[in-house]
Amino acid sequence: MTDINATYQLLCDQARETTMLARIQQLLEWDEQTKMPKAGGPYRAEQVAYMAGLVHKKRTAPEIGEWLEQLTQSPLAADLESDTGSNLHHLRRDYNKKTKLPQSLVEQLAKACTLGQQAWIEARQADDFKKFQPNLEEIIRLKREEATALGYEKTPYDPLLDDYEPGESTENVARILSELRDALVPLVQAIAESSQRPDASLLARSYPTDAQKSFGTEAARAIGFDFNAGRLDVTAHPFMTGLGPGDVRMTTRYDEHAFSDAFFGILHETGHGLYDQGLPREHYGLPLGEDVSLGIHESQSRMWENQVGRSRAFWEHFFPQAQAAFPAALKNVAIDDFYGAINDVRPSLIRVEADEVTYNLHILIRFELEQALIEDRLQVADLPGAWNEKYEHYLGITPPSDADGVLQDVHWSAGLFGYFPTYALGNLYAAQFFAQAEGDLGDLDKQFRQGKFSPLREWLRKNIHAQGRRYTAAQLALRVTGSTLSHESLIRHLASKYGKIYGL
Amino acid sequence: MTDINATYQLLCDQARETTMLARIQQLLEWDEQTKMPKAGGPYRAEQVAYMAGLVHKKRTAPEIGEWLEQLTQSPLAADLESDTGSNLHHLRRDYNKKTKLPQSLVEQLAKACTLGQQAWIEARQADDFKKFQPNLEEIIRLKREEATALGYEKTPYDPLLDDYEPGESTENVARILSELRDALVPLVQAIAESSQRPDASLLARSYPTDAQKSFGTEAARAIGFDFNAGRLDVTAHPFMTGLGPGDVRMTTRYDEHAFSDAFFGILHETGHGLYDQGLPREHYGLPLGEDVSLGIHESQSRMWENQVGRSRAFWEHFFPQAQAAFPAALKNVAIDDFYGAINDVRPSLIRVEADEVTYNLHILIRFELEQALIEDRLQVADLPGAWNEKYEHYLGITPPSDADGVLQDVHWSAGLFGYFPTYALGNLYAAQFFAQAEGDLGDLDKQFRQGKFSPLREWLRKNIHAQGRRYTAAQLALRVTGSTLSHESLIRHLASKYGKIYGL
Repeated sequence: MTDINATYQLLCDQARETTMLARIQQLLEWDEQTKMPKAGGPYRAEQVAYMAGLVHKKRTAPEIGEWLEQLTQSPLAADLESDTGSNLHHLRRDYNKKTKLPQSLVEQLAKACTLGQQAWIEARQADDFKKFQPNLEEIIRLKREEATALGYEKTPYDPLLDDYEPGESTENVARILSELRDALVPLVQAIAESSQRPDASLLARSYPTDAQKSFGTEAARAIGFDFNAGRLDVTAHPFMTGLGPGDVRMTTRYDEHAFSDAFFGILHETGHGLYDQGLPREHYGLPLGEDVSLGIHESQSRMWENQVGRSRAFWEHFFPQAQAAFPAALKNVAIDDFYGAINDVRPSLIRVEADEVTYNLHILIRFELEQALIEDRLQVADLPGAWNEKYEHYLGITPPSDADGVLQDVHWSAGLFGYFPTYALGNLYAAQFFAQAEGDLGDLDKQFRQGKFSPLREWLRKNIHAQGRRYTAAQLALRVTGSTLSHESLIRHLASKYGKIYGL
Repeated sequence: MTDINATYQLLCDQARETTMLARIQQLLEWDEQTKMPKAGGPYRAEQVAYMAGLVHKKRTAPEIGEWLEQLTQSPLAADLESDTGSNLHHLRRDYNKKTKLPQSLVEQLAKACTLGQQAWIEARQADDFKKFQPNLEEIIRLKREEATALGYEKTPYDPLLDDYEPGESTENVARILSELRDALVPLVQAIAESSQRPDASLLARSYPTDAQKSFGTEAARAIGFDFNAGRLDVTAHPFMTGLGPGDVRMTTRYDEHAFSDAFFGILHETGHGLYDQGLPREHYGLPLGEDVSLGIHESQSRMWENQVGRSRAFWEHFFPQAQAAFPAALKNVAIDDFYGAINDVRPSLIRVEADEVTYNLHILIRFELEQALIEDRLQVADLPGAWNEKYEHYLGITPPSDADGVLQDVHWSAGLFGYFPTYALGNLYAAQFFAQAEGDLGDLDKQFRQGKFSPLREWLRKNIHAQGRRYTAAQLALRVTGSTLSHESLIRHLASKYGKIYGL
């Protein structure tokens, strides 16, 4: 028994050391995006690659396999919901995944994705899918090989999805998303046909970026982000990265004539940041101290961005402050016009610019297509056509070019298959959690109107953040909301909210 | 021969890898000083310690000893001024120093210095030297042990000085600095007794910090700092750190009512930064790609700060711009009043606030005292009295408290014995190099008046920066100026410049 405990300690020490090295790599990357002078690029790339190699070596060290072998049959592993059982489950799972892939495949994939991203950039600039096609074919071939090496029962998409949404199945996601689609398409059509249209152009007036920065920072602080343990910087592509307990870095970008971009971007990253700040410190560096999945992470960002930040109640509190911060743009604007503008729904070409309603259809299209690609039901040569067909079918629009169509996202060129659906899962979890929070906490709108965000934040902290990775996303949803994940809460939220705005 | 070349490659690869890891540690430290949220401190300390351990392990790996043994007698080591010979000389030297110290001594010193710095902070706050005395006694005991382990012929101060000024001897430094002292004390006295006094108070008017930042940045750019390969941030204690080829980070601090602090601080760090940006890239990560010594590094910062930045010619170019940048403070100020103000000389208590002339006496006092401490000619208990005596003797003032006297500097509490004299050596090298540059390039003042700084910068780049560590400081001075280091150029510069300002 003492031996087993000592072995468990060795395993945990190694895991914590690996996390620490991974966090150093993340600082190198954060600095590269936010602060590094341009000429520092080549050396930084060497440093990042070196640290990534070190992390990989630590994660796949043969002694981990030996320790796990001793521990898996021990009493420490018996109860999956105990601290030791949960950590061992995840550490074994990660180790097996990491060591199942032959080194040659890992290297081929890394190379194919580097070349793939270069080709994708060129293809997008030239609006010429053919420049990217052979690279994508090679990447998909390797991802299928990866799926085979990892093993699967039903579909090669399963082990890829599992990288981002552990324990989730393609079958289940496909079922939920198709139900979502069936409810969403008529709603989008009804909105598109409505004669009531908000005037979104008021968000393109002049919003000085300094004022955007302080207004956004104050909003992040108001909903609970601890700036003593985090910061906000500027990057071309916004993100959140947790560099350590007490060190959460968020980024955004400011455009004087696009109020929504930075503001809702900040709320979004703050949602991610609050999750990170709420993870259980005592387990830092071990699986129990980490987030559940990308879908659960996204549920936190989406909830603060949409359910909270795009609600009328939120702006009943913040709009007077916004008018004071941006007098030139908002002095004579009525709150309902502003509320309409930030909730303007219209079918559009670009995912990252899409509204709360149509966003999910952009994801659906990608999920259906990448599943077909990985299952060899769709050839890469036929992808642009299939893409355009689905945009016509679900959103009623046809991309005028591949650059604004199938070539718009970086994900596939970077080998990220199975990643897209987590965005929609995040929206679904957000709606389901929010409905439950409302049931538990009473009238949230009333609280938001008074500028009170701590009840919701503490509810999330207790029920979701502080759980770390003890449960899978599905288990967590069941424990917190009493139901498995479904499309119903999200559809109810969207139908009710947009029914009012668009007079449906 | 092939074997030897392969071994040399192994050694160089290891050195470059070690440098890369050390640079990652420096990024962790830079970020801690400039950007990290406060709550990130404890984890960051663990990361820095981890990386420092990794660097130490790489630097002292036994295989390095084996490689060096093979290579030392080989033809690659024969010519000390060849690339291979120079690299091998330094790598052997560093390895021997690092491996001569028993691990237990390294650990005791690390611990004593951590405790020492904590005790020093408390003692300074309480103005109570006794709180620090036992810690300093322990540190000095261990530094003497260190000197014994490293070995020395004449004085235990020699191997300590050698850490910062490789190849330099205590005897030589003592001789030069005592000659400097004998010429400096009467000059300081004459200035103190002069009836001509500039009005330095105009530098305490309102200089908005945003304008200080842009004016300082533009000056740094004008003298040649490449902001595409570096940046400038704010810290409590200004410094420069080279994070990689193409990535030089400088810091400063702004006080609205202290123009000189930030501006000359920026010029100073820019001098360090130009040196780093001028080092030979092709040798990056190896000794040949590094700076010569702290003294030579300081000569670069001091030259741009003092010989250039505090010259009248420099301000004939920049003063109109300064008046435009700070109209409230400088609109009605004559250039000669401004020039006098930035060259106000007066004996003072605090080293870091001292002027160009008296600064060297502050260093002398510390050098003489720390030499006596390490040679056991002075007991720690008697240090405050000895300190005050020397301030009275050299500068004509007696510190009213130990907090503003013997407790003002962090160095001794951090075990940095042998570091102080490099500040004065830097001033001496700066004056000697500058005199030579003037001989080679003609009337530098005339060039500065026209805003032309590239001739001096390129001269420094070619003669000093691009040489990397091929020569010792003494060899470099002899090669560049034809003379060994002496106090004469500095005294000539000071006597001439301040003779005019103070009508001596």
